[in-house]
Amino acid sequence: MTNHTDVSQTAPLIDVAPLSSALEKFAADRDWAQFHSPKNLVMALTGEVGELTEIFQWMTEAQSRAAGTNPDTAQAVKEELADVQLYLVRLASVLGVDLNEAVQHKLQKNAEKYPADKAKGSSKKYTEL
Amino acid sequence: MTNHTDVSQTAPLIDVAPLSSALEKFAADRDWAQFHSPKNLVMALTGEVGELTEIFQWMTEAQSRAAGTNPDTAQAVKEELADVQLYLVRLASVLGVDLNEAVQHKLQKNAEKYPADKAKGSSKKYTEL
Amino acid sequence: MTNHTDVSQTAPLIDVAPLSSALEKFAADRDWAQFHSPKNLVMALTGEVGELTEIFQWMTEAQSRAAGTNPDTAQAVKEELADVQLYLVRLASVLGVDLNEAVQHKLQKNAEKYPADKAKGSSKKYTEL
Amino acid sequence: MTNHTDVSQTAPLIDVAPLSSALEKFAADRDWAQFHSPKNLVMALTGEVGELTEIFQWMTEAQSRAAGTNPDTAQAVKEELADVQLYLVRLASVLGVDLNEAVQHKLQKNAEKYPADKAKGSSKKYTEL
Repeated sequence: MTNHTDVSQTAPLIDVAPLSSALEKFAADRDWAQFHSPKNLVMALTGEVGELTEIFQWMTEAQSRAAGTNPDTAQAVKEELADVQLYLVRLASVLGVDLNEAVQHKLQKNAEKYPADKAKGSSKKYTEL
Repeated sequence: MTNHTDVSQTAPLIDVAPLSSALEKFAADRDWAQFHSPKNLVMALTGEVGELTEIFQWMTEAQSRAAGTNPDTAQAVKEELADVQLYLVRLASVLGVDLNEAVQHKLQKNAEKYPADKAKGSSKKYTEL
Repeated sequence: MTNHTDVSQTAPLIDVAPLSSALEKFAADRDWAQFHSPKNLVMALTGEVGELTEIFQWMTEAQSRAAGTNPDTAQAVKEELADVQLYLVRLASVLGVDLNEAVQHKLQKNAEKYPADKAKGSSKKYTEL
Repeated sequence: MTNHTDVSQTAPLIDVAPLSSALEKFAADRDWAQFHSPKNLVMALTGEVGELTEIFQWMTEAQSRAAGTNPDTAQAVKEELADVQLYLVRLASVLGVDLNEAVQHKLQKNAEKYPADKAKGSSKKYTEL
């Protein structure tokens, strides 16, 4: 029997409220809400993940771990991570999704799916083949 | 002359510290840090954005705005948004990027790039053609 | 009882052999095969699909159908479609996958999965929720 | 002075005409053309590239090069490559883009951009930082 933690009582894992408000104001000031359908925002998110991917595509894994040591690369990485975060929060906002609650539930679900003792050192669980 | 706000003094827009710690512990408990190179995590992020995209691909924009009204769709959307957020925070963590600082700088940059009075009601600035 | 067509006997649906050879020579001439692991090429493919997505992200569906009427947009679309095709063929090549055979089997599978009379006018089958 | 080859005279690098026709008939038989706006098809393409990415995300580069040796992985890879090819050809079709011409021009452009003697053994040209 799984004893689900009451998520509503636990401390927040993430707080995006100020950013969500700032983005809502940013869009309202420019009359951009009309363009911010979830469909469009998902595409914008894809575009930014694509730009992030282009930074790492020819790197080895070892090089990717050291990406922060090159100032130009580090700056580019920061900007793309920010872009992904901005669109993700905006998307959750227009969809009315509470990101913290969503994250809490997902983390709990993952903990039940991958018990530490069984998943240890294996990436097998990832490959859904 | 642009008078840059001292970002370090402003209130945080986003706080992901508890989630970042939780994910670090989650990975350590399963000996998964070895798989979490930035290169791999960017790919995992791509996979999740792909799953999010599949929810919306055949919807009209109007349907996408009403996605929350169908309980099954709403649940799927929540899970995928959570997955994207989890990998994004984990990625920033292994890269040593402060997401709040990155977001603050990007938002400021966007405000300077798209002055409210000039960008009003136009999506032109987006198309980099 | 499903009577599978012998794919090996049917006329090809797609022929990418000359392009595959051209790309192999292109990479060999530049000593780039070392960078062309499937992992890296999948990421390059992601990057190009991201660029393609950026062209369409703020368009309505109707505007996307008319994308060819603007010469600049048409040119950008052509280049991104080409980039996706180039990386896809290169990826199939290094993985030793016969794209024509793969496409034939998939099309046959789809025909069995979505009988014309039952799938008529519905996009429901797409949403895997 | 660059002496551009007359692309229209050269042998085709790729022939997708039979697949393009097959997909048009497939969509017509199911009354699906209404869903096949370029915007929607680009999203469908993203979804498939996401599924392809999930196969490779936790592999090392060396493991990705050997992906064909595991029958289950090889089968999954084939199906995803086919899906990407199907949507790409369908997308080019609804946009009225001649994929062979697009690919010919792009390959020529790349040859001019990366002269073999200068690009030899370097992945530098890729990183657009």
